Amino acid sequence: MVEKDLIAMPETHPIRIADFGCSTGHNSCAAMQIITEAIRRRFEIEGLISQLPDFYVYFNDKVTNDFNTLFNSLPRERLYGAAGVPGSFHGRLLPKAVLNFAYSSCSLNWISEVPKAVLDNTSPAWNRGKIHYEGARREVREEYANQYSKDIESFLDSRAEELVQGGLMALLVPAVPASWDPNSAYTSTSELYLFGSCFMDMAKTGRFSEAKVDSFNIPVYFPIPQEFKAIIERNDKYTIERMEVLDNPGKHNLTGPKDRAAYFRATSEGMLIDHFGSEIIEELFDRYTKKLEASPLFSDPDCDKSIIMFVLLQRKPESYCSAS
Amino acid sequence: MVEKDLIAMPETHPIRIADFGCSTGHNSCAAMQIITEAIRRRFEIEGLISQLPDFYVYFNDKVTNDFNTLFNSLPRERLYGAAGVPGSFHGRLLPKAVLNFAYSSCSLNWISEVPKAVLDNTSPAWNRGKIHYEGARREVREEYANQYSKDIESFLDSRAEELVQGGLMALLVPAVPASWDPNSAYTSTSELYLFGSCFMDMAKTGRFSEAKVDSFNIPVYFPIPQEFKAIIERNDKYTIERMEVLDNPGKHNLTGPKDRAAYFRATSEGMLIDHFGSEIIEELFDRYTKKLEASPLFSDPDCDKSIIMFVLLQRKPESYCSAS
Repeated sequence: MVEKDLIAMPETHPIRIADFGCSTGHNSCAAMQIITEAIRRRFEIEGLISQLPDFYVYFNDKVTNDFNTLFNSLPRERLYGAAGVPGSFHGRLLPKAVLNFAYSSCSLNWISEVPKAVLDNTSPAWNRGKIHYEGARREVREEYANQYSKDIESFLDSRAEELVQGGLMALLVPAVPASWDPNSAYTSTSELYLFGSCFMDMAKTGRFSEAKVDSFNIPVYFPIPQEFKAIIERNDKYTIERMEVLDNPGKHNLTGPKDRAAYFRATSEGMLIDHFGSEIIEELFDRYTKKLEASPLFSDPDCDKSIIMFVLLQRKPESYCSAS
Repeated sequence: MVEKDLIAMPETHPIRIADFGCSTGHNSCAAMQIITEAIRRRFEIEGLISQLPDFYVYFNDKVTNDFNTLFNSLPRERLYGAAGVPGSFHGRLLPKAVLNFAYSSCSLNWISEVPKAVLDNTSPAWNRGKIHYEGARREVREEYANQYSKDIESFLDSRAEELVQGGLMALLVPAVPASWDPNSAYTSTSELYLFGSCFMDMAKTGRFSEAKVDSFNIPVYFPIPQEFKAIIERNDKYTIERMEVLDNPGKHNLTGPKDRAAYFRATSEGMLIDHFGSEIIEELFDRYTKKLEASPLFSDPDCDKSIIMFVLLQRKPESYCSAS
């Protein structure tokens, strides 16, 4: 469907694709290779190979992302010209109406900032002694949910500006089911709860103050499918072409607690060092690995009920949208 | 003139600018700030500020450039969206006909590769015992000149594809005068000659073999103005709007031999380590600094006769170019 719609686009020269939240490129380069190859094949099948347009890929991530590694990972044999676009994908990044295809894989769980109320000891949403909303007060989760909703709206609005009319957007969104049994299953949020408990253990041994923990929260949120769908439906700039819940396809890649802790460390270490300093990292992840090992639940990837939503959206023509 | 022509461009939305050879951004960010501010001011003066288009800047340099530093140097307050474009500016980098303004400052002296004949001991252009063409055989200089000419042609052809019709290109090209008196003056090439002599001194002390020196040449070339003009005139895709020879405006920034050696080290160290290993670097630059200090010529910036050419080109409409 994606290739067919891209082929049908009038005056599409070149085809411009963007990956929002590309990180250092390991998965992103593979995805861009697959996408550009699939489109090329489609032109071939339709007997239009002589009309194959150029491809141009924008790789986006935060300014602090390691773009040097990304650029050095670009395959030598590729169908596309490449550019790196530094900045937050919650805002505008590209010129107006240039993108044919927007893509984002497993990045939209990052919210733009920790909700202020969660760190404010005068607020009912103050998240004392925790680093995330799982197992916290209802108000904490609501603050996170509101921030997530605002951020996804900004993301959708920004991409709506950047996409051509009829342009497509494919999202792989980390999410959780509406409910799961904590006695027999876990999700990404349960892991964050377990991880958070290590901080309080360390605070109790005097490695840092409890206030240090109170002033730190991890800016990620995992919606349930209905919640994500509602956010898209409120934004009327897209038609939903497809929405599917995928069983987390990567869960068997992490074969044990050590792998799982190392993976989490890779994605969070920078942020942890910024707040707590590098001297606590080894002990923190030692403790976390031990907790994972001690749990029969977390040792079994089949107990992981985290999900990935696959969402395919199409940018409506401007005239079809109500005034915004 | 630049701002006026950019303002006059029909359907210019956004204005796209590219800097070819931006390095880590110190000079590039300043230049892009000046250019975008100048255009904004012009819109203001003409009473057209409400029609000011968005700006989008492509920062280009080699894949091995430090784009992380560049992205972190981008001013927070800026008028433009930014992207990094990794790759050789001797080839195509951007989509067809998107650029309004191409810019390159003090980068076109880098040629795409050392001419093969210069490293080939069976060739009449073999550059034995030297690392550059200054003071070498006529054949060596010719090989460098041919490579430069080919590279600039590729640069001009690639940019002609990327520029919109009527688009502008401003180049600051490091060059040398047609002649200078080596008893009272020096240029960038004289410096390379002096630098090269340090390698042979070190080879004689046994730090590395003479063959190691023979297999290394520095891939930079400094044309004389007439030579550069002839290359542009052979390429009929541009009109020359302006061509001026500037006295090297940066020469008084390097106040002494130590500065001069440090500046040269910053631009060449990576390449030297790749060929000779890092263990020779300190001694090499010690020797070079001493030679600079020993010379009354190199100690006086007023003896520096290196020049910078300012060239402003305009992309001809396609129909005005002969078939290519």
